[in-house]
Amino acid sequence: MANKKRKVHFEPGNVDITVEQGSNLLEVAIQAGVRPIASCGGAGTCGTCKVLIEQGEVESTRTDKVSDEEYQRGLRQACQSKILTDLVVHIPVESRLETAVLTRERKGVATGDQPEALATGWRFNPPLSKFFVELPPPTLGDNISDLSRMLRSLKQHYKIRNMTVDFDVVRKLPQILRDGDWKVTVTTLVTAVEPRVADRRRRRVINVQPGNISRKHYSLAFDIGTTTVCGQLLDLNHGKVVAEGIEYNGQISYGADVISRIAYSQKSGGLPKLQQAVVTTINGIIEQLLTQSQADIEDIGHLTVAGNTTMIQILLGLDPKYIRLSPYTPAATYIPPVKASSLGVKVGEHVYLFTFPLAASYVGGDIISGIVASGVHQTKKLTYYMDIGTNGEIVIGKSDWLVTAACSAGSAFEGGGVKHGMIATSGAIEEFSINPSNLEPVVGTIGGEKPKGICGSGLINIVAGLLEVGIISQNGKFNTDLPTRRIREGSDGYEYVLAKAPKTQINKDIVITEVDIDNLIRAKAAMYAGCQTLVTSVGMTCQDIEQVIIAGVFGSHLNIEKAITIGLLPDLPPDRFVFIGNGSLLGARLTSFSTDMLDDARRVAKVMTNFELSENAAFMNNYVAALFLPHTNGNEFPSVIKRLADLADNSSKRRVTV
Amino acid sequence: MANKKRKVHFEPGNVDITVEQGSNLLEVAIQAGVRPIASCGGAGTCGTCKVLIEQGEVESTRTDKVSDEEYQRGLRQACQSKILTDLVVHIPVESRLETAVLTRERKGVATGDQPEALATGWRFNPPLSKFFVELPPPTLGDNISDLSRMLRSLKQHYKIRNMTVDFDVVRKLPQILRDGDWKVTVTTLVTAVEPRVADRRRRRVINVQPGNISRKHYSLAFDIGTTTVCGQLLDLNHGKVVAEGIEYNGQISYGADVISRIAYSQKSGGLPKLQQAVVTTINGIIEQLLTQSQADIEDIGHLTVAGNTTMIQILLGLDPKYIRLSPYTPAATYIPPVKASSLGVKVGEHVYLFTFPLAASYVGGDIISGIVASGVHQTKKLTYYMDIGTNGEIVIGKSDWLVTAACSAGSAFEGGGVKHGMIATSGAIEEFSINPSNLEPVVGTIGGEKPKGICGSGLINIVAGLLEVGIISQNGKFNTDLPTRRIREGSDGYEYVLAKAPKTQINKDIVITEVDIDNLIRAKAAMYAGCQTLVTSVGMTCQDIEQVIIAGVFGSHLNIEKAITIGLLPDLPPDRFVFIGNGSLLGARLTSFSTDMLDDARRVAKVMTNFELSENAAFMNNYVAALFLPHTNGNEFPSVIKRLADLADNSSKRRVTV
Repeated sequence: MANKKRKVHFEPGNVDITVEQGSNLLEVAIQAGVRPIASCGGAGTCGTCKVLIEQGEVESTRTDKVSDEEYQRGLRQACQSKILTDLVVHIPVESRLETAVLTRERKGVATGDQPEALATGWRFNPPLSKFFVELPPPTLGDNISDLSRMLRSLKQHYKIRNMTVDFDVVRKLPQILRDGDWKVTVTTLVTAVEPRVADRRRRRVINVQPGNISRKHYSLAFDIGTTTVCGQLLDLNHGKVVAEGIEYNGQISYGADVISRIAYSQKSGGLPKLQQAVVTTINGIIEQLLTQSQADIEDIGHLTVAGNTTMIQILLGLDPKYIRLSPYTPAATYIPPVKASSLGVKVGEHVYLFTFPLAASYVGGDIISGIVASGVHQTKKLTYYMDIGTNGEIVIGKSDWLVTAACSAGSAFEGGGVKHGMIATSGAIEEFSINPSNLEPVVGTIGGEKPKGICGSGLINIVAGLLEVGIISQNGKFNTDLPTRRIREGSDGYEYVLAKAPKTQINKDIVITEVDIDNLIRAKAAMYAGCQTLVTSVGMTCQDIEQVIIAGVFGSHLNIEKAITIGLLPDLPPDRFVFIGNGSLLGARLTSFSTDMLDDARRVAKVMTNFELSENAAFMNNYVAALFLPHTNGNEFPSVIKRLADLADNSSKRRVTV
Repeated sequence: MANKKRKVHFEPGNVDITVEQGSNLLEVAIQAGVRPIASCGGAGTCGTCKVLIEQGEVESTRTDKVSDEEYQRGLRQACQSKILTDLVVHIPVESRLETAVLTRERKGVATGDQPEALATGWRFNPPLSKFFVELPPPTLGDNISDLSRMLRSLKQHYKIRNMTVDFDVVRKLPQILRDGDWKVTVTTLVTAVEPRVADRRRRRVINVQPGNISRKHYSLAFDIGTTTVCGQLLDLNHGKVVAEGIEYNGQISYGADVISRIAYSQKSGGLPKLQQAVVTTINGIIEQLLTQSQADIEDIGHLTVAGNTTMIQILLGLDPKYIRLSPYTPAATYIPPVKASSLGVKVGEHVYLFTFPLAASYVGGDIISGIVASGVHQTKKLTYYMDIGTNGEIVIGKSDWLVTAACSAGSAFEGGGVKHGMIATSGAIEEFSINPSNLEPVVGTIGGEKPKGICGSGLINIVAGLLEVGIISQNGKFNTDLPTRRIREGSDGYEYVLAKAPKTQINKDIVITEVDIDNLIRAKAAMYAGCQTLVTSVGMTCQDIEQVIIAGVFGSHLNIEKAITIGLLPDLPPDRFVFIGNGSLLGARLTSFSTDMLDDARRVAKVMTNFELSENAAFMNNYVAALFLPHTNGNEFPSVIKRLADLADNSSKRRVTV
């Protein structure tokens, strides 16, 4: 059996790969770059990696995720299939990641003028600097060492002293000084571990290049998300973004969320494979950025990365095992400087990787980065900073104090646990309205294509819409008395048909079920209860919140009114809400521009108090009370209660008149 | 021709090696570990690597270093020979390095009680420390990161704060904390680049090990000499040397002195080969030290190395090219910390290599180390510190100031440029006396064997002896009127026969020629003139010197009286001379024991003023004046002049009476 080679042909994409007989089909698809979705990371429990075996044979363990009809058509879970013969494999539309839609996310990131204004009081003083110096050539009367000569000139010309020097600089210095005819460009970096010397952190000399190339002075800022990775190339001479790129995190085929990634990392060879996957993604983006900007890889001097604790630990090759096990300890709050090339990142050998300090295993450097970027640590306003997602990281505070928690919201916001749930990519239903008179829906999808499923923001809009017209009641149950065939009993209980099979890409009715609604209620309840718990811990109420900063790409597509309607966001006037987009990337960029921000990030990580909600009694009470639309305590959502009552009035009036 | 394999058999040693036809015989001998001497590094100019081709054929370029008789016997310069067929090669005794005699050097190194007392005012506070800590296991109420937990405990138990941490420590920390059941041993290092925080340099956490192993706490001190490499394993808990080792520097077959090593480093692949050679030597010594001490390699936490600038740059892989080219600039005065394993040294990955700062290309870290070890920087006495050798490094000064210079003494002290010169190994004539009545010599050799040649200290004793009995006059010329056949005319002019062929190992008369004497006079003149130049630059004279510290193994075997007689040492009372032995190794050891010494070394390197003598007019005048035995200015050597006069008196009286 072993060593027999088999050819696998994937469609769409026309990709061929030759592998050993017996290989796992999901692993082979990942290797071939076909990028199937596999939310559970190959455990066989999600059913998202179903593929159609058009020719050839696989040996496949059948789970309840494959229906009889699907099985007979030739659909198999790739993760459960061993390759026996040469194959022709078709990846169905619902199992495919599409990259076209990523540009919509990029837009959110790029429109950075207003959010940048949130953080104030920072000077433009990048940690990375380039200095051109012309040295007096050595003579017998002045033959100090090459390094001393260079440091002396830096001191004379730029008043910089007390620097540390990387050994690699010493290694190449003699030749470069002479190649440059004693004119060189010196790159220095201020790292977070360097001590302050007279109001400035000490600089580290990380590179020296012949001649004057100080005008080529770039830095990279990255956000490593569980789903997507975004990178920007920054021109440090002009303080601007010169190129941007975004890609799905290459780990996505190993699991949709951090828990499944951690699970995968515990398999033999799992951690290096995940690390390699995200590094490949980063390298791909760097290549895009260089192509866009015509910059040279040698002119990139620094790499700032923000991400959640799991993403950062995997990137650094730090076993994330204990993040997942109670009491949930990360490896380190502050990661010491590490050479990016030692991780496989394709940048010069002098480039250090800076990662943001973190607050806890589930409140990572991405949140610290976002807090710093949005100036929460500087404002006098009581602020609620939220990043909506599986971990639902929330921060409450202002300049004097900051408290934080992660709310285990479940994956409903990312389409998980939802019958037709999907990530926010093309074909996902996002817009939703309903005609109150005939209860017929109007759906809009990302990219305007025929619908494939429902994304998280779509789910919120749908549930809010169904609530407003009374199709569901405040406990999330369907009102089965209404005169519409859209409400029907399905295999998972009652459901509402959003799109009929012929009008979909998947040739199946797309529905929302009571189970789906229940999952969303749990998710929103966790976040609201978390907010309430933090706010009451400091003796205030949700109504005291003066500013809500919504971070994340998800947030950018959130309809505030609908999110208040279901009880996800607190019932506050619309002008208190601010979308910051990718706060994590924004913080990484601002920190690349300002050493002050570097200091701020450390200070924020230090003062931030983390609440572990998993065994917090107050949280449990708040959570149970929030398992209602919008809330069991109507006083928390006075405007919603009033509006629902008005709508119910209107609708009963209308029905009477019809 | 290419790729044909040939077998070469070496004797003595019974070593076989199979190599490609056409290979260079010297390179092959080095590769086979046969260790021939090759003073010029394979340039063909020294004739020390002559070997006897007993069977087979080589293609050899003949130089004037091979006499007709030698050529006919089958002797060839290995460096000039290409292997054509299978060979049987005999390495003659004069071309062999013997290791047995190294133990005599080791003895010099070990007797460290008195010299250690020279340096005062240092506390026992090693830069390397081990701390055992027991951490409270994490709970949901206390789930800070693993690293923060460890640093917190170190702060609580040992009042250590503000540490930096190596990334590799973070990488392994989570698993080690749990393997050790929250009891771990933390290794910290104070490097020279760490800033002071409240009278202490900041510590760097370089290692963490499960359990309590703080009693296994070792450090390595090395002196990398051009000829020999000495290493010691230090127990930092008890402040003592637990094992010692010495070996010839593996580079020795690539050239005897730093200049030929630098020349070799410029050949294609030369630098890596030299680097590899010394690293192999170091690794061999480490293996010896571990065997002697039963210590474990993982328990070694630091490596302190002293050596001249060329040796250190080659060890670090820094191109030494510019050391040799005017104006003689080294790469760096202070070498940043570098991981020893990155250079190929076989120690744990956490081990940093510390190299001493240097004063100049030819006044290296070995001198700084020796100065610190002998307390020159602390004494009120005007001190002359000297390391006798090719570069003849000298330092004049005391606690307030230090001036230094390297005197290009030539290689006479190491047996170079001397017809029967050799390095100080077994069979070298070292002791010499002469019967004034019949002018017959009595010679004593190192190891007591039949003589093979003359080492540097022997040369001094011989020339002083010949001068005292009037066989040579003060200008170094033979008195050919004397009634002895020992004085005769040879191929290089007049010579004195020290040993007749049958009484030697080489079956040739061993002689000293006028050319040899002239070379010694040049060498001693360079050192004396250097001393004079430095002393007069500060407005004093050689007679004002209150203390002379003689470093180096050569120094340890120097006869003070004879060295004064020829004018190498200043004419001072014997109690002003102190032998420090291997000052470089001593400094490396003391620095491993005391962070104070680390600071001292940096301070000394900073304050020391280097004189470049090569274009110094005063030096040239002093040098010319010193080309006489002992000196053209008799006032510089009053006691010698008086003694020579007395001896001449006695001898003329005796001859009259005979």
